[in-house]
Amino acid sequence: MLEPPAACQSVGVVEPQTARFDEALPLRSGSHLDSFELVFETYGKLNAQRSNAVLVCHALSGSHHVAGRYAGEDENSGWWDNLIGPGKPLDTNKFFVIGVNNLGGCHGSTGPRSTNPATGQPWGADFPFVTVEDWVDAQARLADKLGIECLAAVIGGSLGGMQALSWALQYPNRIRHAAVIASAPKLSAQNIAFNEVARRAILTDPDFHGGHFYAHGALPERGLRLARMLGHITYLSDDAMGEKFGRNLRHGKAVYSYDPEFEIESYLRYQGDKFSRQFDANTYLLTTKALDYYDPAFEYDDDLTAALAAARANFLVVAFSTDWRFSPERSREIVYALAHNGRNVTYAEIDSAAGHDSFLLDDPQYHAILSAWFGRIEV
Amino acid sequence: MLEPPAACQSVGVVEPQTARFDEALPLRSGSHLDSFELVFETYGKLNAQRSNAVLVCHALSGSHHVAGRYAGEDENSGWWDNLIGPGKPLDTNKFFVIGVNNLGGCHGSTGPRSTNPATGQPWGADFPFVTVEDWVDAQARLADKLGIECLAAVIGGSLGGMQALSWALQYPNRIRHAAVIASAPKLSAQNIAFNEVARRAILTDPDFHGGHFYAHGALPERGLRLARMLGHITYLSDDAMGEKFGRNLRHGKAVYSYDPEFEIESYLRYQGDKFSRQFDANTYLLTTKALDYYDPAFEYDDDLTAALAAARANFLVVAFSTDWRFSPERSREIVYALAHNGRNVTYAEIDSAAGHDSFLLDDPQYHAILSAWFGRIEV
Repeated sequence: MLEPPAACQSVGVVEPQTARFDEALPLRSGSHLDSFELVFETYGKLNAQRSNAVLVCHALSGSHHVAGRYAGEDENSGWWDNLIGPGKPLDTNKFFVIGVNNLGGCHGSTGPRSTNPATGQPWGADFPFVTVEDWVDAQARLADKLGIECLAAVIGGSLGGMQALSWALQYPNRIRHAAVIASAPKLSAQNIAFNEVARRAILTDPDFHGGHFYAHGALPERGLRLARMLGHITYLSDDAMGEKFGRNLRHGKAVYSYDPEFEIESYLRYQGDKFSRQFDANTYLLTTKALDYYDPAFEYDDDLTAALAAARANFLVVAFSTDWRFSPERSREIVYALAHNGRNVTYAEIDSAAGHDSFLLDDPQYHAILSAWFGRIEV
Repeated sequence: MLEPPAACQSVGVVEPQTARFDEALPLRSGSHLDSFELVFETYGKLNAQRSNAVLVCHALSGSHHVAGRYAGEDENSGWWDNLIGPGKPLDTNKFFVIGVNNLGGCHGSTGPRSTNPATGQPWGADFPFVTVEDWVDAQARLADKLGIECLAAVIGGSLGGMQALSWALQYPNRIRHAAVIASAPKLSAQNIAFNEVARRAILTDPDFHGGHFYAHGALPERGLRLARMLGHITYLSDDAMGEKFGRNLRHGKAVYSYDPEFEIESYLRYQGDKFSRQFDANTYLLTTKALDYYDPAFEYDDDLTAALAAARANFLVVAFSTDWRFSPERSREIVYALAHNGRNVTYAEIDSAAGHDSFLLDDPQYHAILSAWFGRIEV
């Protein structure tokens, strides 16, 4: 077992900031936003050459709160806190790290909960569809505002990995390295199918009110709860679920009830309940659609090699052996396409039992590879 | 490719029958039914020795209508019509085949839609929990009524396979052969998790009314629709879904809408809509719980070999390579446990792209194995 360096520390107490953009942002759907705000956090210091910035892109339920904690909220540490900090794999002694909440999100950036200037009411379901490419465009505006011409790296897991890949294609001269973790070049039919069931759960919840539930003082908690329960099944591997919960019965035997009997049932309900009170249903819908739509090879007659020809960055691609949401096979598609283009790409397939969730965990092998890769980046 | 014999025919027009049982049936939950009815169909003729009867057990959404068609309903052929008929793998020139709707079902046998004698109202959610073992007990009563002391074989796929296995354990002297197709000795945590999401979709549908929706003139169609959509994801393999639907867009490009855009979305919605208008929500709940509870090794400290020691039948176990609901690994657990007990067991792992659904399809290799196995059974 590899041990993390003894000097690892948290970035400590952090505060989110807000950047406002008053130039219209065109969106892939044909719509646009006249203006928007992005909430973000930064850790470490931007160096004088402005050459040490690393952007961290979040996945479905993530946010700008990537590392550290908020004053008075010791339990609410960033979702990738194990990765980012002084002496950690993404070392804030060396790098200036930026976490940003994506457009359409529900953690402070302009999204369905924001006021639609045309109506004075929350956007709700009228918020325009946003794509991975739109998010990257908005993130590039944030980099502009921070005075960063070229990012040392962009990193993300799952949907975040798609953003890292898209950065390399949309802004090849503004990104030197891209880390695509537990991701895929596009969703499979099965991936889309799971998203569609989750969306139907939300859209058909009577408390959804066509996406304008804010005005009705309602929350489509039933639908969000189901969406999240389903999500968690795909985040864990069959084996991990078996090891963690197996067929363990809360009462030691069948009690013939629809209340939770098996421990896996309690786990899913707990996760679903927690999420449904916190997350915005419209953001969930928009984000799953962004996932479905992402397909850089679509305009290249399904030729991923041709699609990735524009990339100039050095890549790290990481997959996890038991990830069945985005299996290693899907990561290898990216690797092959990059290699065919003569790009510099490091590929690591980590033997981990935890399924898709592995990218959030601190597997020593995984973190050692990230340490080494970030260690080689010159700033 | 193996060709089916040219003489294959349908059993033609069939009619369901109803058997009434007035002796109380004790249930594993501790509850009981004072009396009950089973709806069933038969194909072929019971021979003079009453030695050629084969019972077919249905899975989650199946019924007693296993083969043939109803007069005036040409489209409504039995769910295993490709398997059963004159000259077919389960040859009705040789065998007397019985299909039965299980207790708690919604196709005519006593279930949640039946009248609760205690209230004069439909049972609804008050219908007692039923288990695989209870179903087998009820099926044994039906065999009694038909004058069949010993079944030549019991066959079933998925949940039906669990019934075939349970027959061999509960009535070892009344069953000579058991065919356990695309099944498992018990559900995994992931299997239970999928069932739990489906159940929550139904139970939290406002139209469910605590299971007494009949009295409210309502149908929990939203919940049933979601349950069925989710089910279909687990019935198909990732590859089969990819081949059948891929990322095909109905309009050739993204139109940025929550209406079906990808063909897989249309498919799932169609399946969900159809099912939600036909199937009973309480039956769905009861049946998924029967699946969850089934675990013959539970009373044997999780020792499947010890659990299967009582079996005397000759077994056929069939699994399908891309079935991820009940993978071949799960079938092999049954095979090993039977083999350790010195039982006669034939195991076939069919290379099929269609996932769990394969057991309903007429893969030539699969049907050739069934033909050969049934062909060897002496009657």
